[in-house]
Order: sequence, then structure tokens, then C-alpha cells
Amino acid sequence: MEKFEFYNPTKIIFGGGEVTKIGDVLKGTVETVLLVMGSGSARHTGAFQKVKDSLESSGVRFEILEGVKSNPLLSKVREGIKIAREKKLDGVLALGGGSVMDSAKAIAAGAVMDDRDIWDAFLGKAEIKSALPVFTIPTLAASGSEMNGYMVITDEQSGHKLATASILLYPKVSILDPELTYSVSKDYTAYGGVDAVCHLMEPYFNGPAPFTPVQDALAEGLMRTIMEATEGCISDPTSYEHRGAMMWGATLALNGLTKAGVGDHHFPVHLIEHAVSAIYNVPHGAGLAALLPGWMRYFSQKRPERLIKFSTNVMGVEEQADSMATIEMGIEAFSAWLKSIDVPICLGDLNIGEDAIDAIAENALVQSKIWGMEKVYDRDTIREVLSFAL
Amino acid sequence: MEKFEFYNPTKIIFGGGEVTKIGDVLKGTVETVLLVMGSGSARHTGAFQKVKDSLESSGVRFEILEGVKSNPLLSKVREGIKIAREKKLDGVLALGGGSVMDSAKAIAAGAVMDDRDIWDAFLGKAEIKSALPVFTIPTLAASGSEMNGYMVITDEQSGHKLATASILLYPKVSILDPELTYSVSKDYTAYGGVDAVCHLMEPYFNGPAPFTPVQDALAEGLMRTIMEATEGCISDPTSYEHRGAMMWGATLALNGLTKAGVGDHHFPVHLIEHAVSAIYNVPHGAGLAALLPGWMRYFSQKRPERLIKFSTNVMGVEEQADSMATIEMGIEAFSAWLKSIDVPICLGDLNIGEDAIDAIAENALVQSKIWGMEKVYDRDTIREVLSFAL
Repeated sequence: MEKFEFYNPTKIIFGGGEVTKIGDVLKGTVETVLLVMGSGSARHTGAFQKVKDSLESSGVRFEILEGVKSNPLLSKVREGIKIAREKKLDGVLALGGGSVMDSAKAIAAGAVMDDRDIWDAFLGKAEIKSALPVFTIPTLAASGSEMNGYMVITDEQSGHKLATASILLYPKVSILDPELTYSVSKDYTAYGGVDAVCHLMEPYFNGPAPFTPVQDALAEGLMRTIMEATEGCISDPTSYEHRGAMMWGATLALNGLTKAGVGDHHFPVHLIEHAVSAIYNVPHGAGLAALLPGWMRYFSQKRPERLIKFSTNVMGVEEQADSMATIEMGIEAFSAWLKSIDVPICLGDLNIGEDAIDAIAENALVQSKIWGMEKVYDRDTIREVLSFAL
Repeated sequence: MEKFEFYNPTKIIFGGGEVTKIGDVLKGTVETVLLVMGSGSARHTGAFQKVKDSLESSGVRFEILEGVKSNPLLSKVREGIKIAREKKLDGVLALGGGSVMDSAKAIAAGAVMDDRDIWDAFLGKAEIKSALPVFTIPTLAASGSEMNGYMVITDEQSGHKLATASILLYPKVSILDPELTYSVSKDYTAYGGVDAVCHLMEPYFNGPAPFTPVQDALAEGLMRTIMEATEGCISDPTSYEHRGAMMWGATLALNGLTKAGVGDHHFPVHLIEHAVSAIYNVPHGAGLAALLPGWMRYFSQKRPERLIKFSTNVMGVEEQADSMATIEMGIEAFSAWLKSIDVPICLGDLNIGEDAIDAIAENALVQSKIWGMEKVYDRDTIREVLSFAL
């Protein structure tokens, strides 16, 4: 186990119907918030009405920023920053999925960034030194953004989808109300499951520490649980139990718990997927699903022992005398799970062919350099992974 | 999964040699601390010298309170409160095991409790409304006190060992340096392992929520890991890897993670053990070990399904057609683990016989009433559990 610091100050309020507590949560902390939402689903499902009623009854004033899209855009973030500044708002409340929460964070940081543009923080050219307090009410179990400091934003001008993070952007409070996810479509439920599982896989596979039994046990347990919960949510969309397991599982998948102690590591599948979705605007979880089996085959050449552990402990494969057979059975079992929840298992399933490899690799290189990954994930390596995923 | 709030603001700094960071951690936050220690082991091992050097080089002044014993005493806590008040200290730093950390917390709360005595908080007669900031450097992997708000103190006058908690007593920062535990004896290493496993078992068995796959996966994974790490630490006391897994595992075992969502539940084995060690002054972990197999047999009448899950998922027992056979194999396998690390498996192993049952039950009833458990764990039930554990 390597040295680490773990600090996660987000308070979680979990339970069916808990969304109505948001007014009480904000009261006394912030007077006026920017309520950030997506393209209408929170209005259709009634979640917005519940939040509105709760804020009004607690006397918390709010301005609304609507229309955040999946693969959220920098232009929308700038729109939010402008409102927050003009109206002198003192907090940001996200009601939506990862895109909405990430946009809320970028607005919270950008609103108090006087001398620089928020995009400079993504480009590694500016530091986030303060931020308005962020509160979230996720309506999708996927990104884990409700309990971490990460945000991923796409600049439509340059065509780059970049990620950055700050301890200042951990939400103060996140309300996890599984009932808000009952109406999530079968597709997006599945994409959310893949995203959460992938958040666990990246440190599990890429963390260099050779002996991490605590982290492995937590990650393996969460992977199995989220995979089962995804199936449960798809077959019974209004199951409080499955939606609840999915929601809490997805939150814990990227709250720093399973990565603490595995050593410095990269998120290569996310790196490459961000390029895929920046260019093709596919849902993030669909892009991850299309890349994962290929990336596993690529990576099994590098650290077969991790793939064997995954195959036996997560996918339940019986260990074979031939270790490559164990690995292939594990990847096949994982692909079968992807198929069972009806998501892509290769780039071909997204109609992305060999001719796209150069452009995706070129796009991914930008993030690779900013993240300091370009020695491990250089152009040729990214191309190789993409070839495995065709 | 039931409604819950999860909030754990303790910052963890983990790694070999990290103890030397304590001066930097405190600098700028507190000027003078009360350094609380046990009966000399921190001096023998050199841990005290490292802390002293670090505090001095950072210009943090400190007073020392030494001699905290296992099953820590209220009189010692009052001694610390007196020093903290007289010297107007503005923080408490624990260097030691659970007893030292718990004493530090009681001092931190008591020092600023103007109108009441700290024991009133344990008796449920006073509220902890403020506290000096607490910092910990555990030298034993066991109690989890380094990342929670609990404290357990014994009043030698009344002969009661009671527990209470406050969010204000979560340590601000805890430094987990596995190297500090290299010198822990075989016995206390084993007791620590039992304590940590029992912290996972109490919510796992007693949480009433019927469907908790996330919590079960985390608890089962941590139980398996801590059991293996205990064996590893005993066979190789200076193994950084095993000591590290043990230390982080024990911290996560009682930081609120695995209990969140399982519903309101009691800690019956801790309840009864506190009475055993209040009367017989046995190490807490030894008392727990002596009670656990018996308690499991008692509890298998109440919720056999939890014992079956434990037997298969933690102890690796193959499920039998006869569910009671599965359970008995699981309890036997757990008892075999206890024997393998050379701790008691029944009260007889502590030379406690049937004639002691009444006195232990009477003592335990005091805590049972304070914790609101007396309807579930009344005198007769406690006596029944004790009979199973003879």
C-alpha cells in the first residue's frame, strides 16, 4: 500500500423522499443559489417541483440555469458564471446527472475566479483557489460527482473534453434520493452502471502498488454489487432497493475510497473515451463500454496478474492452468454482462471504424499531456488500445 | 437500504514514516496541545521522540499526560481536563491505542464543558456542544477511534464502562503510520484484529434492513482482509504490507461506512464485553473473542439468514442443504480463526464461569438502558447470551 491522504468532507443524506430536505439543508448556509438543471427531465419527473417547494418554504431564493447537455459545454458554464456574478449568488445547487453536477462545480469555481477564465483551470494554466459552495441532488447513478471534486467539461470551440479537480469543489451536502432515478431510461441506467464500474476499474487495474488487499476487496465488492444492481434496475426500474444500491454504489465508486493507497495511476479508459465522446458525442457510458473489453485485452499484456484477479474475484471465473485462458474467460464474462444490459462492446457497435483511430488518438493526446500521461499513453499506445477495441 | 446520513470529516494521512508530519499538521491550527499517551510504550518504541522532534521543529508547544491504561479511566480523563484548562491548551493530540484516543476525546470535550462533568455525557445527562480539536496518531490497529466520534471510558468509582459519541470528536487529522505498530505484541495484534472484525460484525448482523448489498460487500471484504492481515502481522510483525492492511482495514471498519444504511442497530457484543472488561479488566479484544462464538450461536436463532451469509461469504463455507449445518460450520471456521491467532473462544478461556453471569448481566444492563437497548437486550437475554458463551 502506498502513501496517501484521504479527506472527503461531503455530507451525504440518503433515502427515498429526502429530496424535500434541500431547503432545510441550504437554509442558514446560503441565501440565494443558482439551481442548475438539464434539458427538462427534472421538470417532467416532478423533481424540480419538489426542490422548488422545499426552497421556497425555507426561504432560500434561487435563479435557474437550464439546458445543460450530456457532455456538458463550456459555453453553458460561462452562462452560469455570468448569472452567478450578476445576481451575486452565494451557492450552486445541481439537480441532475453528472453533466449538471460538473457544470455546477465549474460555475462555482468560475464565479469567483476574478482574473482568469475557468477553462484555464482545465488547461492546467490556472489554479482553483476558491469556489462558491456546491450542493447536489443527483438524478442519475453514474458519475460519482456528488461526492468528489472532479468535473469534466467540453469546449465546443477547440473540441476538447477535459477534466480537472479541486478539494474546494467537493459538494458540501449531497442528497441521494433513489426515487429520483426511477424514471431513468434503460439505456442511461446501463450507461451509468458501466461508468461506475469503470471508475472502480481504473485504479484497480492501474494502481501500481503490488499489495492492496483492502482496496481490492472494496473495489471487487462494489463492482459485483453495481453490476447486479444495474441488471436489477433495468428489469425493475422502480425498485427502491436496486436503485438505492446502484446510487450508493456509484457514489462510493469514485469518492476516493478505492483509489487511496494504490499509488499514482491514470484513468486511461476515461482518457480515450473523452476523446471518443468529444468527437462523436456518444454518451460517456456507451463510449466506455465500447472501449473496455479492448482495453482489457491490451492491458492483459502489461499486468496479467490484475486481469486474473478481476476474472476470478469479480467475474467468478474458475482459475485455469493457462493464465491467458483465465483472462480471456474473464473478459468474455464481462462482455457478456455488457451485452446483457444492451450496451456496445466495441467501437464497431458505435459505427466507429479504423479510419477514426488517428483523430481519436490526436484528440486524446491533449488530455494525456495535461494529465502527465503522455509517456505511458502516447499516440502509438492510444492507437494500439483503439485497435484492440475496433 | 434504510435512510442514513454519512459525514466523516477526518483527514487521513497514511504511510510509513508519516508520523514526522505531525508538527506541520498542527502548525497554524493549534499553538499548544495536550499530548496524551499510554504507559510508556511510545517512549520505548521511539514514537514519542519522533512526535516531540516534529512538534518542536514546527514550534508547536505541548504538555504531556501519560499513563492512560487499557480500559481507560475517568480519573485520568479528569486529570487531562484539569491540565487543558489550567494551561489553556487549544488542542489534544493522542499518541497511542484506542484507550489513549478515547481519553483524548473525553478530555477535548470535557475541557470546554463549563457547567457539567464529562461523565454526564456518558450517562446521557449532558450534551457535548463543543470540543477542542482532536488529532490522533494510532499505535495500534484496532479501535477505529482515529476516524470516528466514539469514546469508551470506565468510571472506577461506579465500575461502569460506558460509550458515547459526538460529531465534534471526529479527529481533524489522523496520521496512520503502520511502522508504529511493528512492536505491538502478538497478543495485542490479535486482540486488535478481533476488535476490528467485531466492529464490522455488529452492523452486519444487527442492522435490520433486509437488502443491503453495498454494505454487505464492503463489510465482508473488510472482514476477510482484516482476518488475513491479522495472521500476516502475527507471523511477520515488521511486514509493512500486513501492518498497513491491518491499520487501514481497522480504520474503515468503524468509520461509519459499513453501518450507513443498514438501519438502527445495537452493538450487543460490545455491550456485554464492556461489562466483562469492567469487572475482570481483560483486554477488550480478548473479551470480544470469548463472547463472539457464543453470541453467534444465540443469534443464529434470531436471524439465521445473516449467519448463513457470513458463513459462505466470509468464512468460505460451502452452503449445506441443512441451513443450521452451514451456520455451525461457519461458527466453527470462525472459532478456528480465533484459535489460530491464540485468543479465547469462550468465557471459560478467561476463567470466567457460570457464577459470574448475574454480575456481568447486571453491569451490562446499565449501558443497555443508556443505549435504549433494554427491550432487546434485557437481563434474561444477556444471561442467555452469556450461557452460550461459557
